[in-house]
Amino acid sequence: MIMKDNQPWKGKLYLVGLGPGGLDHLTPAARSALQEADSVVGYRPYIQQVLPLVEGKNLVAMDLGQELERASKAVDLAYEGQRVAVVSSGDSGIYGMAGPVFKILVDREWDGEAPGLEVVPGVSAMQAAASLLGAPLMQDFCAISLSDLLTPWETIQRRLEAAALGDFVVALYNPRSQKRSHQLQEARRILLAHRSPKTPVGIVRDAYRPGQGVTLTDLQHLEELVASIDMVTIVVVGNSNTFVDHGHMVTPRGYETKDIL
Amino acid sequence: MIMKDNQPWKGKLYLVGLGPGGLDHLTPAARSALQEADSVVGYRPYIQQVLPLVEGKNLVAMDLGQELERASKAVDLAYEGQRVAVVSSGDSGIYGMAGPVFKILVDREWDGEAPGLEVVPGVSAMQAAASLLGAPLMQDFCAISLSDLLTPWETIQRRLEAAALGDFVVALYNPRSQKRSHQLQEARRILLAHRSPKTPVGIVRDAYRPGQGVTLTDLQHLEELVASIDMVTIVVVGNSNTFVDHGHMVTPRGYETKDIL
Repeated sequence: MIMKDNQPWKGKLYLVGLGPGGLDHLTPAARSALQEADSVVGYRPYIQQVLPLVEGKNLVAMDLGQELERASKAVDLAYEGQRVAVVSSGDSGIYGMAGPVFKILVDREWDGEAPGLEVVPGVSAMQAAASLLGAPLMQDFCAISLSDLLTPWETIQRRLEAAALGDFVVALYNPRSQKRSHQLQEARRILLAHRSPKTPVGIVRDAYRPGQGVTLTDLQHLEELVASIDMVTIVVVGNSNTFVDHGHMVTPRGYETKDIL
Repeated sequence: MIMKDNQPWKGKLYLVGLGPGGLDHLTPAARSALQEADSVVGYRPYIQQVLPLVEGKNLVAMDLGQELERASKAVDLAYEGQRVAVVSSGDSGIYGMAGPVFKILVDREWDGEAPGLEVVPGVSAMQAAASLLGAPLMQDFCAISLSDLLTPWETIQRRLEAAALGDFVVALYNPRSQKRSHQLQEARRILLAHRSPKTPVGIVRDAYRPGQGVTLTDLQHLEELVASIDMVTIVVVGNSNTFVDHGHMVTPRGYETKDIL
């Protein structure tokens, strides 16, 4: 047992969502977790983002694609007795580092208590995009990642079909990479089979980061913009009631039909 | 035109998500918006939650059900030239006050520029619940409100069916009120037609607030717990891969089948 301040203690993992970018959306809970940590593990640019808060700590910055390596290293350090913050952009629990960390913990037959674990939620990329677009997520919505690296494409297709059938607002994560460009076209085709070509579509690139871009279009014209979309872009497709008003994308909650909640 | 510091200026609406509760999840951007506001409009307990930050300002606290009245008052004040923060719990853009405010703005033929408008995103109730449960939202998910006050029940039913077909993780908002108890039972029945009775279900009441409660069960046994669920509860139903490990609800992202992203 490691001792600290003459008290026995155990390592702890903080799975910290940093929010969309900069420090403006970093919650006090996330800030505290970073400050309490002995080590901070994360994708290089996210470590960079919080550098002023973590100087002097053991920083473990890794590259994209090394999610399991990062998780493994963090779990190692926590088992050694350290307090370890594993940082994700957005929310750690939404396509973030919580997944790989739990995978490693389960593989190592974690007892659920030592190291301790705390998930610190953060503003997700989808919410950051929505806030810049207006209020597109005011009715039932779903999030779908178009990356077929970890999910079979047939499963993703089935979800797109289901989202279309249910008239959900759809937030598309990882819409397009250099190696993958047909998935977004296919998603568009599936949604277009159930929705008007005039259905509003919001495209938000690098929300709250340098290079931020917000574009409003519709399902019909999305095709022309596909080449401008990449992995740091969120695409929000409206439902059958979504409209655009003076540059704001809005999905009505239903107040137009009821005067009193 | 109203003048301030000898400069012409216009009113502004800040649609501020406060996060799940207390001040631990209030982002710096939300804090700034509250501090810049002349007036703060919101449901009474949410004004109470941020009282230390807004003392001395014009506080407009109203009761539940007065969403359109709150929105209307806020828009009035903004047209008068004030900076007005409209506060919501969680994220303003997810079943929050952004909906009613945009409804009022559109009704008043807002020009999209004056008053100005800024949506400040916050950690949603669903994310707060997920963070306390483990990592249930690590795969494609959807949010469905079971309240049929603003959405026809047939639409909600269709979405539940679609979510079941798409094998989405499902976060249920407004699962049960004193006047509405059959909707949650019906949602359970629909999901149970497509998923194992052993599908994990997480029930989180008052996340990060006094009285917080976290319960893990499964679709089969959810029935016995329905009476304990109310409007301040979020119910998260796993997908076909969600599991519980030592008290943590986890939906694998797919790292079990791929070693490298």
